[in-house]
Amino acid sequence: MEAISIGLLGLGTVGSGVVKIIESHQDKLMHQVGCPVEVKKVLVKNLSKERAVEVDSNILTTNPDDIIKNPDIDVVIEVMGGLEETKEYLQTAISHHKHIVTANKDLMAVYGPELLSAASENGCDLFYEASVAGGIPILRGLVDGLASDRITKMMGIVNGTTNFILTKMSKEGSAYEDVLKEAQDLGYAESDPTADVEGLDAARKMAILSTLGFSMNIDLDDVKVEGITDITEEDLQYAEQLGYTMKLIGIAHREGEKVEVSVQPTLLPESHPLAGVQDEYNAVYVYGEAVGETMFYGPGAGSLPTATAVVSDVVGVMKNMRLGVNGKSAVTPQYDKKLKDGSEIFSKYFLRLHVSDEVGVFANITTIFSDHHVSFEKILQVPVKEKIAEIVLVTHQASLDDYETILLSLRDLEAVEEIKSSYRVEGGARR
Amino acid sequence: MEAISIGLLGLGTVGSGVVKIIESHQDKLMHQVGCPVEVKKVLVKNLSKERAVEVDSNILTTNPDDIIKNPDIDVVIEVMGGLEETKEYLQTAISHHKHIVTANKDLMAVYGPELLSAASENGCDLFYEASVAGGIPILRGLVDGLASDRITKMMGIVNGTTNFILTKMSKEGSAYEDVLKEAQDLGYAESDPTADVEGLDAARKMAILSTLGFSMNIDLDDVKVEGITDITEEDLQYAEQLGYTMKLIGIAHREGEKVEVSVQPTLLPESHPLAGVQDEYNAVYVYGEAVGETMFYGPGAGSLPTATAVVSDVVGVMKNMRLGVNGKSAVTPQYDKKLKDGSEIFSKYFLRLHVSDEVGVFANITTIFSDHHVSFEKILQVPVKEKIAEIVLVTHQASLDDYETILLSLRDLEAVEEIKSSYRVEGGARR
Repeated sequence: MEAISIGLLGLGTVGSGVVKIIESHQDKLMHQVGCPVEVKKVLVKNLSKERAVEVDSNILTTNPDDIIKNPDIDVVIEVMGGLEETKEYLQTAISHHKHIVTANKDLMAVYGPELLSAASENGCDLFYEASVAGGIPILRGLVDGLASDRITKMMGIVNGTTNFILTKMSKEGSAYEDVLKEAQDLGYAESDPTADVEGLDAARKMAILSTLGFSMNIDLDDVKVEGITDITEEDLQYAEQLGYTMKLIGIAHREGEKVEVSVQPTLLPESHPLAGVQDEYNAVYVYGEAVGETMFYGPGAGSLPTATAVVSDVVGVMKNMRLGVNGKSAVTPQYDKKLKDGSEIFSKYFLRLHVSDEVGVFANITTIFSDHHVSFEKILQVPVKEKIAEIVLVTHQASLDDYETILLSLRDLEAVEEIKSSYRVEGGARR
Repeated sequence: MEAISIGLLGLGTVGSGVVKIIESHQDKLMHQVGCPVEVKKVLVKNLSKERAVEVDSNILTTNPDDIIKNPDIDVVIEVMGGLEETKEYLQTAISHHKHIVTANKDLMAVYGPELLSAASENGCDLFYEASVAGGIPILRGLVDGLASDRITKMMGIVNGTTNFILTKMSKEGSAYEDVLKEAQDLGYAESDPTADVEGLDAARKMAILSTLGFSMNIDLDDVKVEGITDITEEDLQYAEQLGYTMKLIGIAHREGEKVEVSVQPTLLPESHPLAGVQDEYNAVYVYGEAVGETMFYGPGAGSLPTATAVVSDVVGVMKNMRLGVNGKSAVTPQYDKKLKDGSEIFSKYFLRLHVSDEVGVFANITTIFSDHHVSFEKILQVPVKEKIAEIVLVTHQASLDDYETILLSLRDLEAVEEIKSSYRVEGGARR
């Protein structure tokens, strides 16, 4: 039986992992797909570089056309990263009727819908499981497992670096900068950690997840983003004292036809399934109308987990090839994009402020809240230094508009020295 | 386009849920499958009984042949429960070339391999996602998501009733009998709770999971089972004190060609992902060679979650029908069954015993352990009453054979008043 031929764009850690898995699992792949699988060409930058995996030097090439325009190649695996150039390669490959498997979240967050529609027009599959949360089969879970359900909410810990940092800070009471440095030394954070710590990486993944889960074309620009750089040890101590755990949470919430997608540091009750997700692990919590709460947990990155997800997608493509049904699984968004405005986004909030320790101040503050019909779930007041008291509040549900108006009014209040921090609080509706 | 016709065996809570979902999600099903879906016949015991869902009385029948031998029916959904009679119905349906979707774990644990092979011979699909852990797409996760990986270990909280009871006991310090009664009042436990609390229900699910995950024909009789009825408040208090959480855990562990499958009360470190799974929720933790740790979490039972899993399976069958590839997804076990013996099963153990509070007793006890090369991770000793001390030990890894020999020797020791309890300890190898 003729082998299915693969062209690999990139031979870094993930690419090497893909080659390793395909070689060592030949019998299992054969059993699943019914024919052999062969890596035929690999695009690299430098032909003579040392590799983590042994590859016949004859199949290495520095010319992308040897893959994307090669009539002998059936499936192109893109693990080279990058955006504009990579997109052009994949468009060329699709126009040459090659199926695509990619692990590139930047690409999918920005050009996903465009590439998916090109693939569909050319009868090609474009699978991208590895682009969100590496080793967790979350996209497949959304498409297949909940096939007969409607998703109303997704909450995800979808960035391993920030979860590692927040876990360390919470456990050890260390400062952000110290933990970041440790994470960099351990290789869990890049030397330029901006994309991770500012929440951009998580935002890309939430755009991909919500586009699929809500069948609505959510762009990266639609995702409101706030990173973890301003979180202090004090915030984490108060969080713990009040029974919360701080996580960088991506939230995608649909009510009726309208959705909200955002990424921000968020307090979760300690009993929430996401609160227990530690270190560099990822998890996506999904709420479906019929099924209720489910959660997918696993490694969010790493060479082998990501490579495993890539090969799983390749198996999916190959099964479709043998069935002759490629290009049909990419579902074009069914619904028009409708984003909630600030009056439609509801949440609880944690607020920490320093106020003058005088008679009547507390009443002034609570009046501002009650004027906007926002009440409190928890209140804590402690003296911090002479004449200054620290107040920590957790509100009941409030609209984002109301809450932002309240913050403005508080800033105008003379007795308010400083608004130290403010975080969204989620997960309370559970049970 | 011609509708795909469904025959439903049973119209209890799950059956009613299936009817509801198929009716309310017609557009979504149409979008996925490309043709309408119709419930054509429903087998009930009593034609005139009140139903949780409105069903045209013309489609109700008390004669199973109207479904299992009906040439107009494509897919038979079995949600009636039962074993021998149900198996015969399904065999008849398969011989009449009907595809099967079942939620029946008893059936699949006992007759699964037989029915799967009959289905495969007749070109029929037999899907059973709903039989394990209701709303969690775990079987699909094992088959698809980890398609290019080898599973080495699965640990599951796969029984909601016992997890509810253990969560309550741990949180409230209540006695087993009191919590069981409360669970029965709330409808979380049956009036005869034997199958749940003795671990049999969990064992059935572990047989199904390990058969699929290890591609090896694991029978219910191969699963060693111990229930939760002997767990005391004292055990839970010590567990907490030592940093553990008590769960009823199904373990399926492969090393080389040999496997162990068991269900028993097990202590897990509080930081283990399974330790945070509370109340009636289920979760299955899967360890794959390449992907590492993943976990699937969700409702283990309930009318709508189970019905959702059933309908997802129906969608899978219908897609296969339209592709003309039914009967190919049931993978017959690839490997011969090889079970580990007691010398090959390794674990840590928690042991609580009452001993005479005399000089030399502790040395006598520890000598018995060291004679079998078993050392300790944690030791706790407290006086309980005059001349009696309580000793709580957590061992390092020991073989089951060695541990059982040690227990026998301890029982022979005059200074040992009573062995109060003994539990397996898992999850320590994590990170």
